Amino acid sequence: MEDYLERLKKGSLKLYALEDELVPGDAVRVRRMYIERETGTSLQKLGSYTIAIDRVVQKNCENMIGAVQVPVGVAGPLLVQGEFAKGLFYVPLATTEGALVASVNRGCSAITRAGGADVRIFRDGMTRAPVFAARDISHAREICDWIVSHRQEIASAAEGTTSHGKMTGITTAIGGTSVFVRLEFDTKDAMGMNMVTIASAKAAEAISTATGAHLIALSGNLCTDKKPAAVNMVMGRGRTVAAGVGLSDDLIREIFKTNTRTLIEVNMRKNLVGSARAGSFGFNAQAANIIAALFIACGQDPAHVVEGSLAVTTIDPVDGGAYISVTLPSLPVGTIGGGTGIDTQHECLNLLGVAGGGNPPGANAKKFAEIIAVAVLAGELSLLGALGAQHLARAHQQLGR
Amino acid sequence: MEDYLERLKKGSLKLYALEDELVPGDAVRVRRMYIERETGTSLQKLGSYTIAIDRVVQKNCENMIGAVQVPVGVAGPLLVQGEFAKGLFYVPLATTEGALVASVNRGCSAITRAGGADVRIFRDGMTRAPVFAARDISHAREICDWIVSHRQEIASAAEGTTSHGKMTGITTAIGGTSVFVRLEFDTKDAMGMNMVTIASAKAAEAISTATGAHLIALSGNLCTDKKPAAVNMVMGRGRTVAAGVGLSDDLIREIFKTNTRTLIEVNMRKNLVGSARAGSFGFNAQAANIIAALFIACGQDPAHVVEGSLAVTTIDPVDGGAYISVTLPSLPVGTIGGGTGIDTQHECLNLLGVAGGGNPPGANAKKFAEIIAVAVLAGELSLLGALGAQHLARAHQQLGR
Amino acid sequence: MEDYLERLKKGSLKLYALEDELVPGDAVRVRRMYIERETGTSLQKLGSYTIAIDRVVQKNCENMIGAVQVPVGVAGPLLVQGEFAKGLFYVPLATTEGALVASVNRGCSAITRAGGADVRIFRDGMTRAPVFAARDISHAREICDWIVSHRQEIASAAEGTTSHGKMTGITTAIGGTSVFVRLEFDTKDAMGMNMVTIASAKAAEAISTATGAHLIALSGNLCTDKKPAAVNMVMGRGRTVAAGVGLSDDLIREIFKTNTRTLIEVNMRKNLVGSARAGSFGFNAQAANIIAALFIACGQDPAHVVEGSLAVTTIDPVDGGAYISVTLPSLPVGTIGGGTGIDTQHECLNLLGVAGGGNPPGANAKKFAEIIAVAVLAGELSLLGALGAQHLARAHQQLGR
Amino acid sequence: MEDYLERLKKGSLKLYALEDELVPGDAVRVRRMYIERETGTSLQKLGSYTIAIDRVVQKNCENMIGAVQVPVGVAGPLLVQGEFAKGLFYVPLATTEGALVASVNRGCSAITRAGGADVRIFRDGMTRAPVFAARDISHAREICDWIVSHRQEIASAAEGTTSHGKMTGITTAIGGTSVFVRLEFDTKDAMGMNMVTIASAKAAEAISTATGAHLIALSGNLCTDKKPAAVNMVMGRGRTVAAGVGLSDDLIREIFKTNTRTLIEVNMRKNLVGSARAGSFGFNAQAANIIAALFIACGQDPAHVVEGSLAVTTIDPVDGGAYISVTLPSLPVGTIGGGTGIDTQHECLNLLGVAGGGNPPGANAKKFAEIIAVAVLAGELSLLGALGAQHLARAHQQLGR
Repeated sequence: MEDYLERLKKGSLKLYALEDELVPGDAVRVRRMYIERETGTSLQKLGSYTIAIDRVVQKNCENMIGAVQVPVGVAGPLLVQGEFAKGLFYVPLATTEGALVASVNRGCSAITRAGGADVRIFRDGMTRAPVFAARDISHAREICDWIVSHRQEIASAAEGTTSHGKMTGITTAIGGTSVFVRLEFDTKDAMGMNMVTIASAKAAEAISTATGAHLIALSGNLCTDKKPAAVNMVMGRGRTVAAGVGLSDDLIREIFKTNTRTLIEVNMRKNLVGSARAGSFGFNAQAANIIAALFIACGQDPAHVVEGSLAVTTIDPVDGGAYISVTLPSLPVGTIGGGTGIDTQHECLNLLGVAGGGNPPGANAKKFAEIIAVAVLAGELSLLGALGAQHLARAHQQLGR
Repeated sequence: MEDYLERLKKGSLKLYALEDELVPGDAVRVRRMYIERETGTSLQKLGSYTIAIDRVVQKNCENMIGAVQVPVGVAGPLLVQGEFAKGLFYVPLATTEGALVASVNRGCSAITRAGGADVRIFRDGMTRAPVFAARDISHAREICDWIVSHRQEIASAAEGTTSHGKMTGITTAIGGTSVFVRLEFDTKDAMGMNMVTIASAKAAEAISTATGAHLIALSGNLCTDKKPAAVNMVMGRGRTVAAGVGLSDDLIREIFKTNTRTLIEVNMRKNLVGSARAGSFGFNAQAANIIAALFIACGQDPAHVVEGSLAVTTIDPVDGGAYISVTLPSLPVGTIGGGTGIDTQHECLNLLGVAGGGNPPGANAKKFAEIIAVAVLAGELSLLGALGAQHLARAHQQLGR
Repeated sequence: MEDYLERLKKGSLKLYALEDELVPGDAVRVRRMYIERETGTSLQKLGSYTIAIDRVVQKNCENMIGAVQVPVGVAGPLLVQGEFAKGLFYVPLATTEGALVASVNRGCSAITRAGGADVRIFRDGMTRAPVFAARDISHAREICDWIVSHRQEIASAAEGTTSHGKMTGITTAIGGTSVFVRLEFDTKDAMGMNMVTIASAKAAEAISTATGAHLIALSGNLCTDKKPAAVNMVMGRGRTVAAGVGLSDDLIREIFKTNTRTLIEVNMRKNLVGSARAGSFGFNAQAANIIAALFIACGQDPAHVVEGSLAVTTIDPVDGGAYISVTLPSLPVGTIGGGTGIDTQHECLNLLGVAGGGNPPGANAKKFAEIIAVAVLAGELSLLGALGAQHLARAHQQLGR
Repeated sequence: MEDYLERLKKGSLKLYALEDELVPGDAVRVRRMYIERETGTSLQKLGSYTIAIDRVVQKNCENMIGAVQVPVGVAGPLLVQGEFAKGLFYVPLATTEGALVASVNRGCSAITRAGGADVRIFRDGMTRAPVFAARDISHAREICDWIVSHRQEIASAAEGTTSHGKMTGITTAIGGTSVFVRLEFDTKDAMGMNMVTIASAKAAEAISTATGAHLIALSGNLCTDKKPAAVNMVMGRGRTVAAGVGLSDDLIREIFKTNTRTLIEVNMRKNLVGSARAGSFGFNAQAANIIAALFIACGQDPAHVVEGSLAVTTIDPVDGGAYISVTLPSLPVGTIGGGTGIDTQHECLNLLGVAGGGNPPGANAKKFAEIIAVAVLAGELSLLGALGAQHLARAHQQLGR
């Protein structure tokens, strides 16, 4: 042990190389000890993880020193009336923000008592958009023209890299001599970013070879990955999914201690007019909260909360009540790959009945997306209700501190 | 035990009420068992957490059933030349996305070898924006006028709710009869959302009483919390912080296997032109990745990754190299409150020397914000370098699957 | 005559230099003849203008060859209940788009019959934002700090260039080493762009001298001039003005052949949800149409239609009817300078009682802004009503072709 | 005469009904006299128009009282190397903003001396997006599904209304129960808004009948017409066109009194970083100025300047100089319909060789779009050059006042 620490100190052994010489558990321990000494701090709790890490150090996290533990609360039962998700679900939420689980739980209760929420997937495709340099505008046009007329050729190149993925779309856009090619793939049960990146590399190669376009970057930000971007609102990225539920005036009064008209007014002035005046791309109350908590619990990429935050919440007056909905234009999720295989995360996916590959392929990821959308709807209902009843501040005082 | 499960099943005991009758550990265990039975799944790993939960079930997470464990890797040492953060740091990153820690680590190496990165805080203030209904446009004007001329009165009302917070700004905006009042507070070492919400409730009461404005919602989305919004770019929310580093041509070539000119071109075509054409509010490569990983490790609110993703990355050519920077207009962080007190998260903050309240108050949160900005810079450098060297796809193939 | 044409042909006389040798009318005639010969086209109608051009060729238009004539229709009478504009107005609209005047006229009728529209100005300030290069992030902070603590010094430098303008605001923002300084001025009855640009040059000089900041461009696009930008929505540019009117159910039915509930639904689904899903900064039906027509009629800068298009239209249900409003965050207008002095444009301003400088200074521009806002409201009402009654297509068929 | 004025005063004759009883010239005269008396102002100059108005009062402007005259200056010769526009052009600019024509003229000079600018059209399609109400989310999905599988049926319904237009695209998007259907048409030489609106009414009818979707508004703002919207950047609206030109270091120095490196830096810090920090959808210097001036001269709809302002300007360093480009994602133009037939406007179109329908149909509008893009490029070059040489303020002082 001391020997490794010595070598790390001298620089003759690199921190990231410990796994080359030690079994994962030991490598992580030595690394953590080294960091503890270097910084004079204790990392004992970080080191007392209970998950298996053999695959983790290879697939999920380099330079591992331990694990952080995020409390998981459960909201539900939540009645979902989807195409893929049907029935009652308990939703696992990994969060440290007091009041969040309670809030979602209240929304679940309303939805379930109302007979469940409808939810449908409207679009499905993970994207990557390499950027190329053209010589000039004429060349940019030639490149775009070539792409349009060689779609099949590009698809073949891209799909050769994967047994699951299928190219489902290709669009071009230019900014002067920068040519962006947005490739879209059906990635089945995977969130698909890695698959798509690898496939796009091949597609880019084909385009470059044929047209003389100079590949500048495999990701040209028109993808758009993990940045708030209108292109994802307009064209979708990941799963585009929407959920809605009809609530009666009575149910609204009973559960949310407010009335339908107030709920509509809160949504109008806050989520629509307020977001408009803020120059916002998100027209919702707290979609990001629910998505973040579900993503962390279920081993999703938490930076994709950015895409998820582009949600729009609407409330329509209907006879005797209201129809409340949320639309998520861009929800990148998967039930295989990423952090989905880690012990605790896998259990959370299992709790929802969506762990691993679906049958047919893609069915699990779609079911998962449907559940998320309804959980987001529950969060919207609850926060709008709380604002309507003006007890948000009180809730913070009691639970949040 | 069975007795409780029985009562839960019958509905005579509510899931959230278990803590009223049992000590936290038992309450969580019973709840987990109940969910296991209801769903027919095992949650054993979720249940094998090692953190203390007495405060967690009160402050961080209702309906707790266990904890999810997120691997933490370390990047560094990272040399920071801030106003609050000075010296070498090891950065804890909680992530399940392979290649991320390695990527940041490479950027840290470049920064540290270059003599460290400058970093400064440009603005500091957490916001909340209640929305009121006015009777008509004339009334809306009266409300706005009253607010402008009674700033001190509003500040007194707001500050009466907190021993730490101080109101530092107040602006109004209207959308027809909706009047939005954006209140800004210095919240010292707290991220401050709860503090600000409670203070805003009092401010809103004062405004409502004096003007007849009808409070519709304590948060009117002009805050803007957890939605991508231009108002946060333009006016800031949380800490506004920027970091920069000068790299020589040689260092760029050696570490990133590309050259300065290519790095500049990648940044231009991807981060600037690409984001422009995507209608994006984020002009960066992967800021959200680093912020998400640091936020989860350090007990921050992960939904605030949305605000963090509004980063702008620039590269200036300079003699013999380049000056690379990242600007984060809106970074909500704290070293007290939220998830900062949970055992493993607390250790991560400790590792950075920022756990708990600072001396003077606010110093720890500012130091933390500076470190985050430099870590984001490291991530930008590394990804831009990888794209420049066109081995992003290769990296995914080797590490990411 | 032929002599001049000869010299132009040979290049020994430049097109723009004709005014140096000839009186304006002749210079314009020779130039037009030259262009006619060069292009083999007739420009006779362009040449048959009837406005005086002595000042025009000096102040408004270089290389003048004639004038285009844009038909002006009138809408009204329009009853305005503003702070500066009170009473009945006939609104001149210069347009070639059939149905526009008729549409606005119908809206005017509704407003006037309802007792007029309230309108108020909420903010007033023309902006210019020079961009400077800092050496690094630390330097950028120093520059920003200096500006904050030398506001009076900067104001003095800026105001020395003008007898009317007054600096009313200064804010900074950075993007890496780019430091943007947004200067705001009260420009009284002038739209003020020129005044502000000249004043900003002096302010920039002072900043540069004191801090070593390197001036890159007098306009750094954070102004933001003539580009759709959230900064103008959030902070305002030119006049921020809002107008509203209460309409009874009966009036809505009678004039718009639809009902209140439909009007509300059209506004919700089109102007709010539709604009949200489009990633739009404008939440209105046709604000740009009315602004463009008024701007051209009244000698305003028509490129400022871009700022004007950032309008938000709202409809609140009220007992027995609805309150409809429009908010224009950024309306740059003036009654002196620009094209306001040209004969026909001056008459249009006169028609509204706002030609020339106001008493006190600024009163005319504010009155003008109030009238525009109410005219925009008339346009919104009319188009929403037409959509509600589903006869937009029919209107196009009858009038628009 | 007095008789008509009397009846107007009493209200027994409506202002808009004058054309029913009088020839256009007399109707306009009586109406003007009436307004003059009502307002106590003289509109003599407005009345001294010289254009023929028989068609104008029917097609372009209701309630006409005269015409406003806008000075037209000429910039050029401008060498264009397009697919449709080839050769030298003199560009007519209708403007009252001093310095604009001079500025564009300088840019034209640079482009022409450099051998002309490349320009290409990348996309072409005018859009209209009706919005429907669905009963719930399931119904929304059914509607979208039906549309996807009945594209031909919808196209037939739409195309039945026009002899020219052809439906080239149809996409759907939802916001809760609001279903937006964005229909795209090739409108040949017409700008096409009216044609598309009429065709969309028929398409909407077909959709509504088959699916039970309830048509709420023929325009649901996802079109997006005359509001700044990302959907137009991402998917295009009207013509998508880009122009570029290579300038040598020498030419830049000679014409713009600055150097290549400075030009690049100005563009970077202002047009890219500045616009990014402003939350702007326009990444250019003054595209709106040139578009507005050309649109007014040539009888286009000036409210479409909003779409035109979404331009992106880029500068690439190349050996011995720079390649400067501008990309206009959304430029709605036509050479027939709208104001294109009015005498003076028609002459301006004629001056560019694009008046009337093209051969083949569409060729004139495309040629026109190409010329506009190159004129915008000229404006960008000139303003960036002026900023680089830091004489913007001086130019304003000399010409602009």
